[in-house]
Amino acid sequence: MTDFTPISEVGEFGLIDRLRDALGTAPSDDLVHGIGDDAAVVRIGNGRVQVVTTDTLVEGVHFDRSFMSMGLLGAKAIAVNVSDVVAMNAAPRWATVALGLPNNVFVEAVETLYDGIAHACKQYGCTVVGGDITASERFLVSVTVIGEADEDTVILRSGAQPGDLLCVTGDLGSAAAGLKVLLAEKDAFATDDAQPDLRQWSYIVERQLAPHARLDRLQQWREAGVQPHALIDLSDGLASEVHHLCHASGVGARLEAALLPVHAQTFKAAERFDDRPETYALYGGEDYELLFALPEAQAKKLPGDSFAVVGAVTASPDIVIGMPDGATLPLEATGFRHF
Amino acid sequence: MTDFTPISEVGEFGLIDRLRDALGTAPSDDLVHGIGDDAAVVRIGNGRVQVVTTDTLVEGVHFDRSFMSMGLLGAKAIAVNVSDVVAMNAAPRWATVALGLPNNVFVEAVETLYDGIAHACKQYGCTVVGGDITASERFLVSVTVIGEADEDTVILRSGAQPGDLLCVTGDLGSAAAGLKVLLAEKDAFATDDAQPDLRQWSYIVERQLAPHARLDRLQQWREAGVQPHALIDLSDGLASEVHHLCHASGVGARLEAALLPVHAQTFKAAERFDDRPETYALYGGEDYELLFALPEAQAKKLPGDSFAVVGAVTASPDIVIGMPDGATLPLEATGFRHF
Repeated sequence: MTDFTPISEVGEFGLIDRLRDALGTAPSDDLVHGIGDDAAVVRIGNGRVQVVTTDTLVEGVHFDRSFMSMGLLGAKAIAVNVSDVVAMNAAPRWATVALGLPNNVFVEAVETLYDGIAHACKQYGCTVVGGDITASERFLVSVTVIGEADEDTVILRSGAQPGDLLCVTGDLGSAAAGLKVLLAEKDAFATDDAQPDLRQWSYIVERQLAPHARLDRLQQWREAGVQPHALIDLSDGLASEVHHLCHASGVGARLEAALLPVHAQTFKAAERFDDRPETYALYGGEDYELLFALPEAQAKKLPGDSFAVVGAVTASPDIVIGMPDGATLPLEATGFRHF
Repeated sequence: MTDFTPISEVGEFGLIDRLRDALGTAPSDDLVHGIGDDAAVVRIGNGRVQVVTTDTLVEGVHFDRSFMSMGLLGAKAIAVNVSDVVAMNAAPRWATVALGLPNNVFVEAVETLYDGIAHACKQYGCTVVGGDITASERFLVSVTVIGEADEDTVILRSGAQPGDLLCVTGDLGSAAAGLKVLLAEKDAFATDDAQPDLRQWSYIVERQLAPHARLDRLQQWREAGVQPHALIDLSDGLASEVHHLCHASGVGARLEAALLPVHAQTFKAAERFDDRPETYALYGGEDYELLFALPEAQAKKLPGDSFAVVGAVTASPDIVIGMPDGATLPLEATGFRHF
């Protein structure tokens, strides 16, 4: 008798490894980089490449219609895909949008969703060229974004070198803290009819509901003449993404907990829920900031307020974090888990 | 108070029109053709274009796991997208696959799905370069396929000219007839424990479960030096697709019911269910054959068994069908409706 394996046993990334095996090797000369980075890279001639990525948001898994407005949902569906394109150091060009609509969604709601899509696309210089609409029990938005770059400026996850600094844009954990606040306020409203007051949480709530892809940072790097060795976006939490980057590069890393950039509202949320702010910063997903590795001399060319150093790449394959009390702990790869 | 419009009131295509308005005009010089054809067309330099299309299959809407095997589902998800690329006269190159998996799906089942995807991709010369996996209440497969072509050989829906013949590849209505048989056998099994006997329906059942994109026909046209004026694939049924093609071309059409190519098993299925075979041929979806318009002189260059003439393009905007009894009836645009 055959044994069947629940997906939870191998996890999302274990499943992807097994599916890559099922697909076999790709025979095309034009494929620069297939499954395994933020986006695939294919040649289109004249030294140019396209990067292709797809990401789906499913109601009940990725968003809650009770606090996610249709306009913000549309913008977020674009932003999370553009973030993967940005993580290859490429510029977004084209998008397709596939919608699954339950029968309790009205035309006006879908139009508002598309207003959000149009707004985000304009912001990132991207054009929706096609799509698909189907009935579905659960609301879902599946977006594919195609970007373009010169082949020699594409940045993979796999180029990190021992001695490189590990840096991040923005602050960490705020999207996860924002989600926790939203869920708590929803709960309080349901049980005590308490009116949500989100004013003191406006920053982290916005980080959860309206994330931005860091296309602005690519521009900054180009102007400064800086090209990081390795780059990945923070969709699943810093700890998980550091593992991805190090695994792809064949290196290790040492982070410092004291260096993690955490916003004041994220600290306050951690206090309210009796959590540690580092937990949000390391394991909270959906920040859509960038994690990159580059030599110190390169980092010095960048404006100091445009990134934070969170650690360094090591030749030793261990991935560890230095704690404020001086202890060094192994950093687990845990991130957001769908299964 | 605002009135809200149910999607069923405007329909899938009405909704697409409204969403196109919400997106506004696309400002890019590189966009040859956006929303409104089988696939979008964007320039990539050197006279080459890419065509981009996306299509999602949702459990309970597009497939039934009780008779659709995982391997066939994977192959079909690729075929229906390749069919849209073929309908632009382009060759498929790259695919991304986004999966939504319920928790009752095992790793081995997903691997079998991917075997089907790999098999179909090999057949069409296409490579899976990326994807996304997420939890979902309902099983879903969302595929995007990118194809390539010379810009001057792309065929849109909009080029049909009065006097052109309207032709189709293959036969019509067999996928819909196959679905009807499968549902009836499932029902008989559920109510009377009757073992399904599908041997006499093998052709139409295969047409439903394992459709093929007609990439082979493009090759044939190229070899014969034939370039149709207008081209669309038959995903929603001939009647609906004739309307799309005529509407885009600003022309009308006259079909002849007696000319519709219908397979013997489709006739037999119509008899069993007391339906008319023309109903399957005109309104049954999912044949994934091609509908094309071209001058008679061009059609004569093609092997006679590679297509069937079903009517002609007219200057009058009416879309009508000649019935065997000599009557001429308006042809309704009804096709498969999700909403």
